[in-house]
Amino acid sequence: MIVVLTPNPAVDETWHTAQLRPGTSHRVPTGTSRAGGKGLNVARILHGQGHEVMAIATVGGDTGAVFAAELDDSGIPHRLVPVAGATRRSIAVVDESTGEPTLFNEIGAPLAADEADALCAAVLADAERGDARPGVVAVCGSLPPGFDPDRLCTLVAALHARGIRVIVDTSGPALRAAARAGASIVKPNRTELAEATGTADVLEGARKLRADGAGTVVVSLGEEGLVIVAPGVVARARLPEALRTGNPTGAGDAVVAALCADAVAGDREEPVSRLRALARRAVAWSAAAVLMPLAGELSPAHTELEESVQVQLDREETPCP
Amino acid sequence: MIVVLTPNPAVDETWHTAQLRPGTSHRVPTGTSRAGGKGLNVARILHGQGHEVMAIATVGGDTGAVFAAELDDSGIPHRLVPVAGATRRSIAVVDESTGEPTLFNEIGAPLAADEADALCAAVLADAERGDARPGVVAVCGSLPPGFDPDRLCTLVAALHARGIRVIVDTSGPALRAAARAGASIVKPNRTELAEATGTADVLEGARKLRADGAGTVVVSLGEEGLVIVAPGVVARARLPEALRTGNPTGAGDAVVAALCADAVAGDREEPVSRLRALARRAVAWSAAAVLMPLAGELSPAHTELEESVQVQLDREETPCP
Repeated sequence: MIVVLTPNPAVDETWHTAQLRPGTSHRVPTGTSRAGGKGLNVARILHGQGHEVMAIATVGGDTGAVFAAELDDSGIPHRLVPVAGATRRSIAVVDESTGEPTLFNEIGAPLAADEADALCAAVLADAERGDARPGVVAVCGSLPPGFDPDRLCTLVAALHARGIRVIVDTSGPALRAAARAGASIVKPNRTELAEATGTADVLEGARKLRADGAGTVVVSLGEEGLVIVAPGVVARARLPEALRTGNPTGAGDAVVAALCADAVAGDREEPVSRLRALARRAVAWSAAAVLMPLAGELSPAHTELEESVQVQLDREETPCP
Repeated sequence: MIVVLTPNPAVDETWHTAQLRPGTSHRVPTGTSRAGGKGLNVARILHGQGHEVMAIATVGGDTGAVFAAELDDSGIPHRLVPVAGATRRSIAVVDESTGEPTLFNEIGAPLAADEADALCAAVLADAERGDARPGVVAVCGSLPPGFDPDRLCTLVAALHARGIRVIVDTSGPALRAAARAGASIVKPNRTELAEATGTADVLEGARKLRADGAGTVVVSLGEEGLVIVAPGVVARARLPEALRTGNPTGAGDAVVAALCADAVAGDREEPVSRLRALARRAVAWSAAAVLMPLAGELSPAHTELEESVQVQLDREETPCP
């Protein structure tokens, strides 16, 4: 089982307007509402691909009721930790003339200490309950107020100590904290990597996170594919040409889903050919997510896309630590 | 008692962002939620000014629960007709760098015929229940899908036949329908008047609505004050100079509230001096609403503003009908 924690979930609403004109009024049809936040997108993709998954998140207030109802309908197994604050919302206003989304992400209510404790306890319990060996936990998205990077560090270290593989997709100090705690994989995008490490050089930034303690660093680069910096080897993977159109929201979540699917499969293959296969799948799933209108879905084209992905592997001399 | 019908209510949410940049992500603090729609703003102002008021609206779904809870807290007497569709939302994103709001108004779910019937029945019952003679009913804002202009015409005509004064603030075909049904007062703004009558000339447009059957036409003109076209007289009223800053949302609702407060007072004064007083108050309340951050509130400055309003009266020759 793959446990996916979304510390800062949201009700994702998508509204469409003919054209977004700041300072004016727009009449819009009622938008769609979905249980969202990066981890929910990851869990949705994994569930859609037939993986056993458990989505864990907090839930509260009227918006939480909407969140829980949609998640019930989705069929994704989930465990929701009740909290006092209302589940935040994230509204995407899509300008139909350009297809461009404008996002308004509520910061959300702070978690009380006992709520954050309960959330971490739920992750630890489910991570050990699954049949899959190794256990896999993904922690996805921003941390809410009241769940600080030190707490993430403690959670990741506790999972790591139990032999559970931890994949973390977050940003800022939380990204560094996850690396320090020994996360198996951290997955920043280019901007997040630069912000967290202070360097715009992708390889240099990734090596800083490896030096912090992360096992592997996967940097998603949008149309340019991704770079995987693993012990002794760097993989660069991309499509031969960029997709013409699509919705980039959720592309990074598809990468994390591919990382989870690989991690739960265990170490049955030769490392380098496995890394190549992982890089192919991660790029293909990311592109297949871009082809779908909503985050958390993969176009069936992902199998075909996988064959077209170009992978370049460079072995590195690794100084013994 | 003043009965205020909001056929198409909304949960009004106000979100603040440092700067609205289309195509980007914005982290926003959780906004405020209020029971909204034009009639709720009118009822809120009248309640705040000590008038006996009854706000009538539909309510449904999770958003309806938020709507009802806020209305309960507000202390405004209300009667909510339960409907199957969820209460729509209206989101104002305020750009803090300019103060400019960008509005997203959900169109909302259609009313079933029996729901629209129940809403009209509630208005008729409460309009006759009040002690105040004459009874006053205000109908404010857009009509939801399923509540067509013919139905508004029937409601206004039924109220008119019972000797109840009806004040209607709406737009498009509904505005013409209200005038045809003999509304005592219709209150379009300049744009609504032009759209409904096909002329950009305010006096000509107002006379068209009078010819349709409206008793008095009040046209709100924003910073330029308002024009009242009543039988035999035209009043123009405005502040000596425009307000420097403020939030124009709800300014028109303050005009309607002033019209209601005047209507419920009955015909105790000489018509022309009463018209002058009404014009003063309507402009002052409108300006006092602009001075407040949220629609439905009046700055205490309204009494002082009232003294500064400039009113010009022009008597007209009225051909006998």
